[in-house]
Amino acid sequence: MDYVTILGLAAGTLTTVAFLPQVTKAWRTKSTKDISLVMFIMFCIGIFLWLIYGIFLKSLPIILANAITLILALTILILKIKFR
Amino acid sequence: MDYVTILGLAAGTLTTVAFLPQVTKAWRTKSTKDISLVMFIMFCIGIFLWLIYGIFLKSLPIILANAITLILALTILILKIKFR
Repeated sequence: MDYVTILGLAAGTLTTVAFLPQVTKAWRTKSTKDISLVMFIMFCIGIFLWLIYGIFLKSLPIILANAITLILALTILILKIKFR
Repeated sequence: MDYVTILGLAAGTLTTVAFLPQVTKAWRTKSTKDISLVMFIMFCIGIFLWLIYGIFLKSLPIILANAITLILALTILILKIKFR
């Protein structure tokens, strides 16, 4: 694996794992009023498009990172709608 | 411009502009308690690495999207620290 791919995987790991503390915080506090609903709707659609882009580019970091980020961002979106 | 680049720019526009409603919400309500501090610290570092990755890949969508996202995510991080 070349250095650029490792850099991409590090970037993808950080921007993906970053959503985990937000998921646990929202789940734990049952409070999501300060989180923007519009942000997470737009973000989920955008991440889905990045996923397709990564498939076209055959970029492993982009595909992996966005597949997992999509699951986590959708979870936050669901918690936002559930707890408001 | 080819279709894949247009797809990437659409993806980048969405995941970038998505942070704008969160910035305005935090600014307007002066409340950021439900936003995860750890998320935005990790996210800003990750986005910075994506920016470098985009430069290596010479990918215009990745460079543009992450440069602007970094500014917006840093703004949310500052508002989070300011308003807690």
